[in-house]
Amino acid sequence: MNFKAILHLEDSVYCYALDERTVRVMLRVDPEDVFEKITLVYGNKYDYYLVQESEEMRRTFSCSSFDYYTATVRLKDVRFVYVFRLECGGKTYYFSEDGVSEGYDFSLAYYNSFQLPFLNRADILPVVPWLKSAVFYEIFVDRFRMGDGGKDTSYIDLPWGEIPKPKSFAGGDLAGILQKLDYLQNLGVTALYLTPIFTSVSNHKYDISNYYEIDPHFGDKETFRTLVREAHARGIRIVLDAVFNHCSERLPEFQDVVKRGRESPYFDWFLVHGDKIEGDNYEYFGVCRYMPKLNTSNREVRRYLIDAALYWIREFDIDGWRLDVADEVSHDFWRHFREAVKEQKEDCVILGENWHDSYPFLRGDQFDGIMNYAVTKACLDYFENGTLDAEGFARRLAGLYVRNTEQVNRMMLNLLDSHDTHRFYTLAGKDEDKLISALAVIFLHTGAPCVYYGTEVPLEGGYDPDCRRCMDWRTEESPTEIGKVIRALSRLRAREEVAEGDIRFGAEGELFVLERRSKARLRLTVRSAEGRMPYVPQGEVLLSHNFEGGSLSGTGFVIEKIGEDRDG
Amino acid sequence: MNFKAILHLEDSVYCYALDERTVRVMLRVDPEDVFEKITLVYGNKYDYYLVQESEEMRRTFSCSSFDYYTATVRLKDVRFVYVFRLECGGKTYYFSEDGVSEGYDFSLAYYNSFQLPFLNRADILPVVPWLKSAVFYEIFVDRFRMGDGGKDTSYIDLPWGEIPKPKSFAGGDLAGILQKLDYLQNLGVTALYLTPIFTSVSNHKYDISNYYEIDPHFGDKETFRTLVREAHARGIRIVLDAVFNHCSERLPEFQDVVKRGRESPYFDWFLVHGDKIEGDNYEYFGVCRYMPKLNTSNREVRRYLIDAALYWIREFDIDGWRLDVADEVSHDFWRHFREAVKEQKEDCVILGENWHDSYPFLRGDQFDGIMNYAVTKACLDYFENGTLDAEGFARRLAGLYVRNTEQVNRMMLNLLDSHDTHRFYTLAGKDEDKLISALAVIFLHTGAPCVYYGTEVPLEGGYDPDCRRCMDWRTEESPTEIGKVIRALSRLRAREEVAEGDIRFGAEGELFVLERRSKARLRLTVRSAEGRMPYVPQGEVLLSHNFEGGSLSGTGFVIEKIGEDRDG
Repeated sequence: MNFKAILHLEDSVYCYALDERTVRVMLRVDPEDVFEKITLVYGNKYDYYLVQESEEMRRTFSCSSFDYYTATVRLKDVRFVYVFRLECGGKTYYFSEDGVSEGYDFSLAYYNSFQLPFLNRADILPVVPWLKSAVFYEIFVDRFRMGDGGKDTSYIDLPWGEIPKPKSFAGGDLAGILQKLDYLQNLGVTALYLTPIFTSVSNHKYDISNYYEIDPHFGDKETFRTLVREAHARGIRIVLDAVFNHCSERLPEFQDVVKRGRESPYFDWFLVHGDKIEGDNYEYFGVCRYMPKLNTSNREVRRYLIDAALYWIREFDIDGWRLDVADEVSHDFWRHFREAVKEQKEDCVILGENWHDSYPFLRGDQFDGIMNYAVTKACLDYFENGTLDAEGFARRLAGLYVRNTEQVNRMMLNLLDSHDTHRFYTLAGKDEDKLISALAVIFLHTGAPCVYYGTEVPLEGGYDPDCRRCMDWRTEESPTEIGKVIRALSRLRAREEVAEGDIRFGAEGELFVLERRSKARLRLTVRSAEGRMPYVPQGEVLLSHNFEGGSLSGTGFVIEKIGEDRDG
Repeated sequence: MNFKAILHLEDSVYCYALDERTVRVMLRVDPEDVFEKITLVYGNKYDYYLVQESEEMRRTFSCSSFDYYTATVRLKDVRFVYVFRLECGGKTYYFSEDGVSEGYDFSLAYYNSFQLPFLNRADILPVVPWLKSAVFYEIFVDRFRMGDGGKDTSYIDLPWGEIPKPKSFAGGDLAGILQKLDYLQNLGVTALYLTPIFTSVSNHKYDISNYYEIDPHFGDKETFRTLVREAHARGIRIVLDAVFNHCSERLPEFQDVVKRGRESPYFDWFLVHGDKIEGDNYEYFGVCRYMPKLNTSNREVRRYLIDAALYWIREFDIDGWRLDVADEVSHDFWRHFREAVKEQKEDCVILGENWHDSYPFLRGDQFDGIMNYAVTKACLDYFENGTLDAEGFARRLAGLYVRNTEQVNRMMLNLLDSHDTHRFYTLAGKDEDKLISALAVIFLHTGAPCVYYGTEVPLEGGYDPDCRRCMDWRTEESPTEIGKVIRALSRLRAREEVAEGDIRFGAEGELFVLERRSKARLRLTVRSAEGRMPYVPQGEVLLSHNFEGGSLSGTGFVIEKIGEDRDG
């Protein structure tokens, strides 16, 4: 047995509470080892040395290198201690804090058993109900729709529909979004993520100079208030972009530091190397000197930004914050942010922009979920780059899934592209079948799919600024196949209560298979290859693309209902 | 290569900031693999795809199953991204978020490199200077010394020196400790950890009914104020016991719930299963119904307990809190506790009573350190149980060391016994040599040694209540060998600035070897066996026990200075 491959980490994604009585436990092992049985041997901290219960663990996920076994147990006592019993090659081993041994002395468990010492309510991450079943739509505001015909349009320099340059202004605004709420509702959208709307001189507005005002290009507070109200009336939530890592160099507090250096009361609001600003001797975002980094370790900065976050919740009833460059901001800041936001509005969601394994932010004390760019990359590798086959895709998705708890996975934003990437459609060589099939994957995945505006057209676009082209409204009246599929997937998600189900990833030859145990058992089968392939459905086909006459032709998918019983 | 044994976890003990410019990175590998070289390939997030720096990693710790390689790098830019380059068997591999591969495409690093996205001040755990160099002495107050001859002694039922029963009262008090401060100072003690001193009907006072009053058996606030002042005058800090997991059933708030059930405004302060207290239908500590668990998930309870903690800091200038049953209390509570305590007094220390791997509490947002019972167990296994030889002892200590960051290790309380264990001396079959040599280990270990009162006599004692015998003051005037060694070790720690140095564990045949790079390079060599063994010192012998005529006879130790240069 390759016992050095075995991994378990206490009080982590490997052992956590689902609720005040239920614990999920996971163990990582080497798939080359053949286990007759893996058993969780658990009990109550204070009499474990005398009495143990046991639960067989099941292999639930397999990534490229490891198998993951899990068990979910309902506890009589919430002081949970445990070890693992591994039956492998006719021998029995135990795995505890002290590692793998051939026997285990339960009388010494007090020193070396694993434990989750007490399931305290305050440490259990709740799933925000609306988030897990949401269908998100991201809008880059300047490029979606100009709705306010009466505004001063002199700043606009990009005729609608032409290819944008980095600093183009096309005139999109909040009034434009308001006009299209019915369109979005009809598409199946239940939540909008808007790129920043506060005062800023740029088109993207990620350089904010006033966190308390709507940028006049986009509208005013009355329009925004109406937008939130009308969206809510249609069952659509509004999530705004919190740019708290950095601000605009025009922020008055930064200008004061530019003028007065260390004499400024705001000097410690930023990270200046020296006594005054000289050239680029301060921390800023990326290579953008016009975006000075805010020192969120400073208590006043913390208060200032959190107050702004609360203001938009309290006064406008927004439903969440997407956190820009979230991983460069301190954990300490986000903990305070979470506490304040959730106290103001319990179901206000917190979604980080994190591109990497973000478990340190997703332990329950900071974010609800993140923009799941790792799933984006997996979809690209499977559908476009050809670096993953069906089996590889299943294993990659499984490997990403076990990074986080079930609660967090249910609050992930699964996306194919955004204002920060090439458009998936363009990377896929304008292959609509690939786009449609990839959409099926993110709609059936655990978490909320997030559709980038114009995907339904489909818009083309390379990297920024090309991925931020103007929305093409010409297909509004006669929806494209993509638009129809998005609508159908949204309805299927709602009707079948997809958000509730456990997930499994697998492959059958050329076919990628994703199963959910939702209201019924659902099975998504995807093929990313050329040609035709006979396919025999196992159940009632609910939705499909390129599935004709018993064949999957080219890249396509089938969604079937393969059983009625969630628990079967 | 057994690449499945390789482990690295981002933004964890495997990669963390020592200060705002310095990062320590660790990689776990299989010791059976022979690496020609392991290299950290790192850079700045925004140009890593173009420019990488590299630093060879060194094997620093070896536990029973794994080797750990570390590198400490000083950064030019604090947006730290990295992968590992492994040269093994003539082949070159890379290890990233995506696992082990034979090549690595730095142009895709944005998706799968490891990272510590920004070294934010607020997330870096500072070491409390006094703690890392402290010598602690734990006092079980009722059994140390009765100093107040004028008090009502009618509660005392244990003649001083007789064997205690579970509910015995011997009369020890704060005035007694005050009388012995010179004694403690002379022993080398720089910090006292006192078991609880607040209102309680028991001798141990872990069932508190008033968090704002000193128990009259122990004295009053004036005596306590004097004790803190006089201790501080002698360079001795005072750490109190925070019993926040549970309280006494006599706490008025609990009594109100007993009377009124769900009608009580304090109902949610406790965890009652039902509408009123009936029998044992509520959560309590262990098997002790008289100690109801406090619901620290409740905001009022949180405020109440933290206010009490701040009161004793603010009004009496105490220097720290030891947290009773810390692991059964919510992380959320401890985060609020830490923030409040450190704001009140920055160098007030927070030390958890945690028996297990406690990394989830030691990530920098909760405790400074814990009572290091895992080291206790290792010492017992080496010196007494015979389940570890010198090599095994070194590997066990190394395995415990890599559980936590360097900062946390410097704030650990290393102990051989406490009021919750058998006395080490008794478990060691009253072998003074073993006790003395084990003391040498915990005094040379990283962190603060914690001597249980009476160890210097030495007191005997099995499990509670036997480990809580009355202090024997008969040896006060003519110190024992043990007392002399404690004094000498304390002075050596201070003189050689042991707290500053890196640590390495090893073995040479029957000898356990611990090295510190403190002011000079120190080497502790320990033998736990019977008989005589020639031993040739490598440097100047600073202190030894059972080292005579070039031999270590029986269980003993030698501490040598083997080099002058900390960095050599």
